[in-house]
Amino acid sequence: MEGLQVKVNKAVIYSKPGTMETEVVELPIEAPGPGQVLVRVLYSGVCHTDYSLCTNSWKAPVTVPKGQIGGHEGVGQVISQGPGVVNPKVGAKVGIKYVASACLSCRYCLLGKEVNCIAAKLSGAFHPGTFQQFLVAASNYVTLIPDNVADDALPGLAPIMCAGITVYTALKNTDLRPGDWVAISGGGGGLGHLAIQYAKAMGYLVVALDVGGKESMCIEAGADHFVDVLGFTKSEELCQQVVKLTGGGARVALVCTSSNAAYAQAIYCLDQAGTLVCLGVPEGEPRPIETASVPLLVSRQIRIIGSKVGDRADAHECVRMAVNGAVQAHYQLRKMEELSDVFAEMEEGNISGRVVLDLR
Amino acid sequence: MEGLQVKVNKAVIYSKPGTMETEVVELPIEAPGPGQVLVRVLYSGVCHTDYSLCTNSWKAPVTVPKGQIGGHEGVGQVISQGPGVVNPKVGAKVGIKYVASACLSCRYCLLGKEVNCIAAKLSGAFHPGTFQQFLVAASNYVTLIPDNVADDALPGLAPIMCAGITVYTALKNTDLRPGDWVAISGGGGGLGHLAIQYAKAMGYLVVALDVGGKESMCIEAGADHFVDVLGFTKSEELCQQVVKLTGGGARVALVCTSSNAAYAQAIYCLDQAGTLVCLGVPEGEPRPIETASVPLLVSRQIRIIGSKVGDRADAHECVRMAVNGAVQAHYQLRKMEELSDVFAEMEEGNISGRVVLDLR
Amino acid sequence: MEGLQVKVNKAVIYSKPGTMETEVVELPIEAPGPGQVLVRVLYSGVCHTDYSLCTNSWKAPVTVPKGQIGGHEGVGQVISQGPGVVNPKVGAKVGIKYVASACLSCRYCLLGKEVNCIAAKLSGAFHPGTFQQFLVAASNYVTLIPDNVADDALPGLAPIMCAGITVYTALKNTDLRPGDWVAISGGGGGLGHLAIQYAKAMGYLVVALDVGGKESMCIEAGADHFVDVLGFTKSEELCQQVVKLTGGGARVALVCTSSNAAYAQAIYCLDQAGTLVCLGVPEGEPRPIETASVPLLVSRQIRIIGSKVGDRADAHECVRMAVNGAVQAHYQLRKMEELSDVFAEMEEGNISGRVVLDLR
Amino acid sequence: MEGLQVKVNKAVIYSKPGTMETEVVELPIEAPGPGQVLVRVLYSGVCHTDYSLCTNSWKAPVTVPKGQIGGHEGVGQVISQGPGVVNPKVGAKVGIKYVASACLSCRYCLLGKEVNCIAAKLSGAFHPGTFQQFLVAASNYVTLIPDNVADDALPGLAPIMCAGITVYTALKNTDLRPGDWVAISGGGGGLGHLAIQYAKAMGYLVVALDVGGKESMCIEAGADHFVDVLGFTKSEELCQQVVKLTGGGARVALVCTSSNAAYAQAIYCLDQAGTLVCLGVPEGEPRPIETASVPLLVSRQIRIIGSKVGDRADAHECVRMAVNGAVQAHYQLRKMEELSDVFAEMEEGNISGRVVLDLR
Repeated sequence: MEGLQVKVNKAVIYSKPGTMETEVVELPIEAPGPGQVLVRVLYSGVCHTDYSLCTNSWKAPVTVPKGQIGGHEGVGQVISQGPGVVNPKVGAKVGIKYVASACLSCRYCLLGKEVNCIAAKLSGAFHPGTFQQFLVAASNYVTLIPDNVADDALPGLAPIMCAGITVYTALKNTDLRPGDWVAISGGGGGLGHLAIQYAKAMGYLVVALDVGGKESMCIEAGADHFVDVLGFTKSEELCQQVVKLTGGGARVALVCTSSNAAYAQAIYCLDQAGTLVCLGVPEGEPRPIETASVPLLVSRQIRIIGSKVGDRADAHECVRMAVNGAVQAHYQLRKMEELSDVFAEMEEGNISGRVVLDLR
Repeated sequence: MEGLQVKVNKAVIYSKPGTMETEVVELPIEAPGPGQVLVRVLYSGVCHTDYSLCTNSWKAPVTVPKGQIGGHEGVGQVISQGPGVVNPKVGAKVGIKYVASACLSCRYCLLGKEVNCIAAKLSGAFHPGTFQQFLVAASNYVTLIPDNVADDALPGLAPIMCAGITVYTALKNTDLRPGDWVAISGGGGGLGHLAIQYAKAMGYLVVALDVGGKESMCIEAGADHFVDVLGFTKSEELCQQVVKLTGGGARVALVCTSSNAAYAQAIYCLDQAGTLVCLGVPEGEPRPIETASVPLLVSRQIRIIGSKVGDRADAHECVRMAVNGAVQAHYQLRKMEELSDVFAEMEEGNISGRVVLDLR
Repeated sequence: MEGLQVKVNKAVIYSKPGTMETEVVELPIEAPGPGQVLVRVLYSGVCHTDYSLCTNSWKAPVTVPKGQIGGHEGVGQVISQGPGVVNPKVGAKVGIKYVASACLSCRYCLLGKEVNCIAAKLSGAFHPGTFQQFLVAASNYVTLIPDNVADDALPGLAPIMCAGITVYTALKNTDLRPGDWVAISGGGGGLGHLAIQYAKAMGYLVVALDVGGKESMCIEAGADHFVDVLGFTKSEELCQQVVKLTGGGARVALVCTSSNAAYAQAIYCLDQAGTLVCLGVPEGEPRPIETASVPLLVSRQIRIIGSKVGDRADAHECVRMAVNGAVQAHYQLRKMEELSDVFAEMEEGNISGRVVLDLR
Repeated sequence: MEGLQVKVNKAVIYSKPGTMETEVVELPIEAPGPGQVLVRVLYSGVCHTDYSLCTNSWKAPVTVPKGQIGGHEGVGQVISQGPGVVNPKVGAKVGIKYVASACLSCRYCLLGKEVNCIAAKLSGAFHPGTFQQFLVAASNYVTLIPDNVADDALPGLAPIMCAGITVYTALKNTDLRPGDWVAISGGGGGLGHLAIQYAKAMGYLVVALDVGGKESMCIEAGADHFVDVLGFTKSEELCQQVVKLTGGGARVALVCTSSNAAYAQAIYCLDQAGTLVCLGVPEGEPRPIETASVPLLVSRQIRIIGSKVGDRADAHECVRMAVNGAVQAHYQLRKMEELSDVFAEMEEGNISGRVVLDLR
């Protein structure tokens, strides 16, 4: 494997956090410690969260440090094992996810809420991420990819490691039953186009919402209906259209965009006793979901769920479905040098599906 | 049974909806139709919802009509059966709940969300309620009370029929495990003092929040800790106190008051991955839960559940627990003639536990 | 609709219970009572249970009476409504299922276990079934079929009304997650070929077990693997093959045959912590599942679930999936006069998929 | 703490596996390796499983080796940490359970079925157990006991670490709702008397079954009814008595004894749609549950669950409930030297509650 010959670790860093500036640098290759493995990262998806962290769009009180290596959905191969490591073996194909490591013993970990672990390290957020060729990873946190997965299927698995897990876990934690309707806002985006596919593979019906230009992406992903969010003069009309198409409202609305308007509409796209799942994180000053008032929530018996990622079981199931062919990420390969360009395109909402950095 | 000798149906009606004005009147006794029973109502709890409906405090576009008979948590005895009715038998003790009848066949009913039934009739809200001596009820919607329940236990069961079902169902539909902490806002009120007892009977730990004057009520109900909501200069301090007492935050917060502030605080009283259950409905113009912004919900993985009442299985379980002695409503008996006074005391927040009208 | 012109109700009855003898007779058309509708039955599936009841193969202490009209998976159209019925409307397409009516109020009904209802009437078992042209049905127990379903899709929906509901409910009540393996014994039979399809539509992987002649049926239904149950000299080898194909054992085994051997094998086809679901009922003297010994169940943490049918929500979901095209019954149309022949073919295990009687 | 002064590790070993022979020996104190802690074990419960392992009563093909240190429900204090260990701290009070360590990454671990872990080490079964003063334990597998637990409460926590977790997990994994009836066979034994208490603390009603001499133990533990299993001439009468006391049959039967008869009866003590949980493992040749025939399981929709222990979350919850006072083990302190005597008393069924070895 080529990785073994490489002598330096090429990485793309955030050279001026708070802006989109990035830089490709060469770093030494670290040695894995006890319980760790060294992974030759081959591909890494670029998530909207990377953009938000690099540019500090969420207005966090503390920005990531200069030199931060971003990225949290990587695919690669184990190069060497640290002391005491039995699995994964050298040569194993593995995925790297947002939760780089967790204590596995705190009350959050025991509930499967590893992203809330009191000792969680998050790839690409204050902890080195997957926008680099060599990464030291916790051996019990990488996700095994079956040996027989073909090399050309690997880049498509990168987006599964965050976008896939996020939407799969969100769907799994609702009370959806086969044949129920799910409304997916931002259906043509990185999360959305995978959400459509996971939902279909689990037996649900999908109405996808996005701007008109993403209709074909949504339909190809399997959406039963598409609604152009710019095709209505009033927000109520959009909601009524969803209610009509779903014969009374969706049972679940998955908001995969970071639009406050999408959140305000989603509740009215739901049938009574329905569930709104929050995935996309709006930027700027946080403000409450406009329509989430108590009288409405109570009288319609609505649920709102904030969902971030999944646990290791979710990751396993999610990868398994992709490997089995139930789900296929739509992606374009880009170079590490283009990361700032990719962020710029993200800002303009110009990306269909997912961008994957080629780190080979 | 005395009911049999009575020739008229004494009822208390809303004589001027939009105000607290009520009037006791005498009405003819209706005959039960097919699938119905005639019930001699003996006791009826007075719920804050009755006050809200009578005074139109929720600013509903349409008020209940003049002459509306309120009340939706009644206890009585079956006097006669309509055509075709087999159960309940004449003489059976029964409870009347908020959902007076539902179609049992629409998509909401099949999910157990009967209050959202497309054909639901709601006691005391556009459909005659329990503030009367004789009531025609759907035979498949009354809740059976075991024969061996003593007469003097009956008034205490009235509040179970709405307040009890509401809080029991809310608790049951969370992911609480025995030993988990529940924060109950409005712990000394009609819903709250029952919520404390149901929570304890199900094995949970309880921190009750209310004004200082209701501390003894909360502690008697079984609360492990009490927090005086007026005892802090800042809202953050109140939340921090709950987090401290619960060793990291409650797993579930049940808001049993109609205070917008309670809702805004509740999210910060929760541990990560916790659940806020909305029960009390704030009056006035609906506005979003102040702190329910998407970034917070996602990063902390919080759930918000709007919960209204329960289905017939919930009602059955709920009454069963009360009859078994696990739960006891704290109530004061009042006369029908006092209903307007009761509403006035409610408005001022002066009622501990529940008021039950004596309709004998 | 032709049904309206017909003056008599043509039915096929069990003329000599305990044998396979049946007879086509003409009966008067009954009028629907309160809460009932008259249904013109167009198609009825023939279930192995019909055979068992007609021939008393389960050795029940009491046989069905002479003249019993069998059948419990019918599809038809509402001809008229009894007094007080609002839904379904005249002309509505409806399905008839095994539970002809239930009280909807006993403790079993409240749990959704309607087949165990203390007052359940079972189609074709002591209560008139669907092997007739006109049937009086409980209006709240028929399953609505959407208006836009084409006439030529109706016969295929008949098997859904029992076989479909049975297997869908069984799958739904396990802890399967997408990508998990299900082993389906009797995969090529009436239940099995639908189980394969429902499982696939819900995202599971399927290994079907049956005699070699049914391989193509199983593969067409979507099975990922097929195992010929006659292809092994030892039972252990068969189980080992399933374990191998599933990478450690199936998470769930659905036994859709009435073979005691299949039950004994199924436990060894399971992964640890797996679930065996019992659907097919062996004939003759009941005897325990050979391998279901406590040490094995405990050490491997196995679950065994006896599952019979589903409730009305299950029926609704199940039909919805079929109408959406996720599932298609494999059937052959036969005449009422051929029912005894069909039973004989069943006895010999010669039927692939399902037989549907044409009652038009 | 006294442990620090001790220079040798006093242990009681199985000196002749296949018999009840044990011997107290002095062993060197091992040093904890990476990820391990050294625990000064203060108390260890004696479980029926210890007896079965020592005497090979389950007729396992391989017996534990001569010199095996048994025991799997211990309580102690951390003496020292191995390299890299952060938690638990030196001085922390901890519990040791049946699963001594697991990989936390295999498919069983991800499902919380750690006892089925492909790399599980089991305390007292081929891996050194808690019948010794010093034990090296996996730091992520010990169960934290809050610091403020009094010293004299520690012996009572030992039985929680196996018996408690076993019964709590079993109860938690059923579909019981508050107010439902649980039948507990062997209610006066080590598992049973804790099962009664956990069940009561979770809001269930309990009918305990055992020999007459254990009635007071069961009633003190909180059982609502007691049934003397020797008080009936026919097994059917016993079952009918349970059905009568529970108003139709228990919703769940927990078999805490190792009696085949108890298993055969339990199914008939259940209401329809009920669940039999297998905990006690019968000795001798394994044989199927006599009454678990498919026709019965299907027609009554019965579930049978084999349950062994719990995962770390279960252990945490279970200990928490005991520490909160919801559950109290009934135990007698015995010396290490008496272990063979204890086994002999177990064999004769002469032990009420639990025996705890004092290892101080």
